[in-house]
Amino acid sequence: MILIGERINGMFRDIGRAIRERDKGPVQDWAAKQVKAGADYLDLNVGPAAEDPISAMEWLVDTVQEVTDTPFSLDSTNYDAIEAGLKRCRRPALINSVPADRPKLERVLPMAKQYKASVIGLAMDAKGIPKTSDARLALAMEIVAAAMEFDVPLEDLYIDPLILPVNVAQDHAPEVLETIRQIKLLSNPAPKSVVGLSNVSQKCVNRSLVDRTFLAMAMACGLEAAILNVCDDELIATLATARIILNKDIYCDSYVKVYKGRGV
Amino acid sequence: MILIGERINGMFRDIGRAIRERDKGPVQDWAAKQVKAGADYLDLNVGPAAEDPISAMEWLVDTVQEVTDTPFSLDSTNYDAIEAGLKRCRRPALINSVPADRPKLERVLPMAKQYKASVIGLAMDAKGIPKTSDARLALAMEIVAAAMEFDVPLEDLYIDPLILPVNVAQDHAPEVLETIRQIKLLSNPAPKSVVGLSNVSQKCVNRSLVDRTFLAMAMACGLEAAILNVCDDELIATLATARIILNKDIYCDSYVKVYKGRGV
Repeated sequence: MILIGERINGMFRDIGRAIRERDKGPVQDWAAKQVKAGADYLDLNVGPAAEDPISAMEWLVDTVQEVTDTPFSLDSTNYDAIEAGLKRCRRPALINSVPADRPKLERVLPMAKQYKASVIGLAMDAKGIPKTSDARLALAMEIVAAAMEFDVPLEDLYIDPLILPVNVAQDHAPEVLETIRQIKLLSNPAPKSVVGLSNVSQKCVNRSLVDRTFLAMAMACGLEAAILNVCDDELIATLATARIILNKDIYCDSYVKVYKGRGV
Repeated sequence: MILIGERINGMFRDIGRAIRERDKGPVQDWAAKQVKAGADYLDLNVGPAAEDPISAMEWLVDTVQEVTDTPFSLDSTNYDAIEAGLKRCRRPALINSVPADRPKLERVLPMAKQYKASVIGLAMDAKGIPKTSDARLALAMEIVAAAMEFDVPLEDLYIDPLILPVNVAQDHAPEVLETIRQIKLLSNPAPKSVVGLSNVSQKCVNRSLVDRTFLAMAMACGLEAAILNVCDDELIATLATARIILNKDIYCDSYVKVYKGRGV
């Protein structure tokens, strides 16, 4: 599993304030904490409140690069901010994200090629998020075709089937599981599947329970990456256990500890 | 999900002693506790130590029927003991279990028909448990064919792909998940899938974590029934959450409580 730490996001109050005041402390603390917890990528999202998303993204990249070599997932709907971030990244980044919308694909995919970045493609288009797995996969296929057209290696493409909060769009969840199962059949080599895990539990009680149950189920369907709270110990214990059950790591009695220790 | 309460089993010390001494108390207590926790069936297993498994099974059936109408899963490799139990059951029982072994199928399936019992067929034969899902499914198919031959309705047939402890047979676990996924394709109507959940975690540390993670994964693959510890609150919370994610129950903030309360 590829773990993308979700915590450096302007939507969190401490990070929002830190970005506004250009206060490196909280941002670097969360970077270190998430790397220690085993994050393979750190998501950087300036949040909706940033007055100048371009300079905010540049500041985030510079600030986090001072304390870690872990690569970034540059998370914005503002592609100029993403490009500004890409220019400063020392290691190949992940662009988070682009929908199956032609003008946006034409903007993002050439940029991915130029900066050797990976890309998360969203199973949605200008009309929104469809319900069925077939419709989600059709949009995913459009992104796969566009990646081929713009010469972005399919190994560098992630498809996010877009899980919605289970308390408001419950009928989407089984469709998302089916979509994950079929992403591997879209092409050869296949794109990777990824989810923004905490979306599934937004405004639910028992958020961690919903997150970790969905994670285990999605991993049974072949999920390969997730943007998640890498500091949620119970979530990571579930993830480590699912990896044991899938025979991806070798069982030992201390497998949870071993897995948690891999970031150290 | 069909929940089969595992606790009335002579392998547990308190139940083993109760059976030997014909002490109704612990057996009836566990029956009531499991029914309250929502068990759809109560597994009755006299355990390996019973001197006379036939009279022990008769006593168990009579004893538990005094306190509940919940039907039984009669769990024994001694088919005379199972038949003795079937004769006394007031409600149609579940026979647990028969492998894909011709003489045993010829003994068990006519008995299932006679007593209108359901049957759990095991994906193993006289040679043991095969590793791959293909080989497990081939054995399951033999059981499906035998059920048709002996006129046992396929709706009354459960297939247990046989999960093994993940600490000794880790490479079986992904094969079992794949088997569960494909059991629905064996026939129309299809047999149901069932697992003996706690097998997966035998002698593991974190037994409950392994059990509940495997349960969520197996449910994502279509699992329909499980023999399990219905009194494990965290396990049942995971099960309730997986049902929400699969859109089988309607979300409300108190869905875990509602699910746990269904047995009351």
